Amino acid sequence: MPWRWPTSACAGRWPRPGLRDLGASPRRCWISSRRRICRSSRGSGWRRSTLRVCEIGEFPLIERLCGRLKVRSPGLVVGPGDDVAVVECGEGFELLTVDSQVEGVHFLLDRVDPFALGRKTLAVNASDVASSGGVPLFALVSLFLPPDLEVAWLERFYDGLSAEADRLGVSVVGGNVSRSRVLAFDLALVGRVERDKLLLRSGARPGDRLFVTGHLGDSAAGLKVLLEGAPDGLSGADADYLLGRHLLPSARVKEVRAVLERFTPTACVDLSDGISSDLHHLCRSSGVGALLRASSLPLSGPLRRACALWGIDPLDLALRGGEDYELLLSVRPEDVPHLEGLGFPVQEVG
Amino acid sequence: MPWRWPTSACAGRWPRPGLRDLGASPRRCWISSRRRICRSSRGSGWRRSTLRVCEIGEFPLIERLCGRLKVRSPGLVVGPGDDVAVVECGEGFELLTVDSQVEGVHFLLDRVDPFALGRKTLAVNASDVASSGGVPLFALVSLFLPPDLEVAWLERFYDGLSAEADRLGVSVVGGNVSRSRVLAFDLALVGRVERDKLLLRSGARPGDRLFVTGHLGDSAAGLKVLLEGAPDGLSGADADYLLGRHLLPSARVKEVRAVLERFTPTACVDLSDGISSDLHHLCRSSGVGALLRASSLPLSGPLRRACALWGIDPLDLALRGGEDYELLLSVRPEDVPHLEGLGFPVQEVG
Repeated sequence: MPWRWPTSACAGRWPRPGLRDLGASPRRCWISSRRRICRSSRGSGWRRSTLRVCEIGEFPLIERLCGRLKVRSPGLVVGPGDDVAVVECGEGFELLTVDSQVEGVHFLLDRVDPFALGRKTLAVNASDVASSGGVPLFALVSLFLPPDLEVAWLERFYDGLSAEADRLGVSVVGGNVSRSRVLAFDLALVGRVERDKLLLRSGARPGDRLFVTGHLGDSAAGLKVLLEGAPDGLSGADADYLLGRHLLPSARVKEVRAVLERFTPTACVDLSDGISSDLHHLCRSSGVGALLRASSLPLSGPLRRACALWGIDPLDLALRGGEDYELLLSVRPEDVPHLEGLGFPVQEVG
Repeated sequence: MPWRWPTSACAGRWPRPGLRDLGASPRRCWISSRRRICRSSRGSGWRRSTLRVCEIGEFPLIERLCGRLKVRSPGLVVGPGDDVAVVECGEGFELLTVDSQVEGVHFLLDRVDPFALGRKTLAVNASDVASSGGVPLFALVSLFLPPDLEVAWLERFYDGLSAEADRLGVSVVGGNVSRSRVLAFDLALVGRVERDKLLLRSGARPGDRLFVTGHLGDSAAGLKVLLEGAPDGLSGADADYLLGRHLLPSARVKEVRAVLERFTPTACVDLSDGISSDLHHLCRSSGVGALLRASSLPLSGPLRRACALWGIDPLDLALRGGEDYELLLSVRPEDVPHLEGLGFPVQEVG
C-alpha cells in the first residue's frame, strides 16, 4: 500500500515521542566532513534540526515527504494515499503497491517459519491489489541480507514466496539483493484491473451499507499466541488456526473478483490496520461518516474461545487488531442482494 | 536491475567466505521455539545447514533462489536476468526494475549529502530502464528508517528524489515506510518502451561493433576521493567532477532515446558493475565473444589527472570500476554512421 505505516508489527508500534526502543547509538549527523560534496549537489537548502522521525508521527511525516514531490505524469490516475497507485495501461488500469517485512519489526527471526514469511510477504501486497478490485500479476522482490544468514533459510523463504505466487497466479519477475545488517524484504507488486472495476477508498456514498469478508481479530489473537503462548485450555487446533491467520494471511483476490462479477461496490479497503482505523480512512477519503455495529463484527470460534480464556473482549481485537487482510466493502443498498450465495462469508457490519 | 548484486559499494564487496565484516553476533537459527508454528505452514521441507549467504557468492545464490520460482504468467516477456523485467502493456512493453541503497553498504551516512542520495536512488533505476531503451515513468519508494533519523535529513533526501524525478519525468506514485535499525531505501521503477525499441542484453551478433556513452572510471575515482580524499595537487574542479560522477550519476535516458530515433542497436547494458563485468554479461546473454580495445576506452581529463597523482592506471578504474551508469551498445556495422552528430560523446570500444 502506498504510504502505509506498520502499525501491527510484532515488535510493537512506532515509538512514541522521546522513546528510543531500538538501543541505537546516537546517529552521526549528515553534515559532511567534506564540504566539497555538499557543494557538488544542487543547492544547499537543508538545515540541521532536532526533529526526529520517531517524534513526528506517521501521517505528518508522509504528508511532509509527499508535499515535496510533484506528482504529474500523464497516465497517473491515483497517486499516494489509496491502497495502491493507479496508472493507465492499455485499455485498463495498472495497480502499483509496495510493502516490506523487517526483522524485529514485522517478524522475529527465531519465531517465524521462513516459508510462512515468504507467503506473507507477497500476500500483504496482493491484499492491496485485491482491495482495488484487481488481479496481482508481477512482483519484484528486494532482499536485504545479513552475510551470516543461512542459505537454507532463504530457500525456504523462496519456497513460501513461490507457493503464494502460484496460488495467486503471480510471477516473481526480478529483484535485487543487497547486503544489510538487518534482514528485510521489500516487495513491489503490479496488478491490473478493468476500468469499470477499479475500487478506491473514496467512492463510498451516504446510504451505502458496509460489509466485511471473513472474520476479524484472528490475526491479532494469533500474534498474541505467538508472543505470549496460547492460553491454558485452548485446543491445539484453535491455536493453530489463530497462528495461521497471523502468519499466513490470505489476500482476498478471488473473493473480490467474485463480487465484481456481480456488481461494483462503491468503495473498498483492506483491513491491515484494524477496522476502526481502516474504516476511518475510507470515510475520510469518501467524505462520509459511518456507523459500525460492533455487535455484528464477524468473530471466529477460536477467537472467542481464546479471548474467554485470556479474559479479554474479542471485540477489542476485532476493532483494533491489524493484519486480518479481510476486505471492507461499501455497497449500494440495491446491490446488497448480490452478496448472497457467494460461497464465502460476507457479513454486514454497518 | 533484477537480481543485480552490489559490487561497487562504498563499504566494499560482499565478504569472502569465512569473512564476517559486519560484527554481527551469531544469528539464532530459525528452528522455532514453538513447534506449532512450523506445523501450521505447508510442509516442512527445509533443513538446517551451515552454508551461509556470504559463502555462496552472488550468482549461485540468485540461481538457487530463482530456481525455486515458477515464472509463467501470460504477459511476461523477459524475466529475471536482464537489466529489467519486461511485461506486455497495451500496445507496448512495460519495464520493471528495483534497486536499493543501504547505509554502510551503498552510502556512508556521515559522508553523503541526502539530496545527492535521493537523486542517485532514482537515477540508478532509471539507468536500467534506459539500457532497455525505455522511458521511466512511475516509482514506488520504500523507506527503512531508524527512529532517530532527523526529519530534515529525510526531507532533503526527498528534495533530491523529487529533483531527479522532475529531470526524468518520473512520478513518485507511492511507497512504504517501515521502522528499521538500518537506514535503507528501495525503489521500484516502472518504465515503458515501444515494442520495436526494446533493447536487451541478448541481441548482440557476431560482427557488431561496441560503443559506450560518456566516460568510464570516473565514478570509481570519485568513490576513491570520497573515501581517501583527493590526491595532493588535484584541482578542486577535478575533484568536484569526480565526486559528482559518483554521487550524482546521470541515467542515459535522453541519450538512448536519441539513438533509438535513428536506429535500434542490437543489444545494450548499463555499466553498473564495470565494463569488464557488464560486457561479459552482454556476451554471455547474447552467446557471442567480444574484443575490447582497452586503448579506446573513453577516459576523462579529471580521471587521467587524478590517477597520475595517485600513481595508478586509469584503465584499471575504467575496466573494473562500477557505477558509471553509462551505456554499452552493440551496433550493426551498417548502423555505425547513425551514431555521428548525436550531440553527446559515443566512443567505439570494440
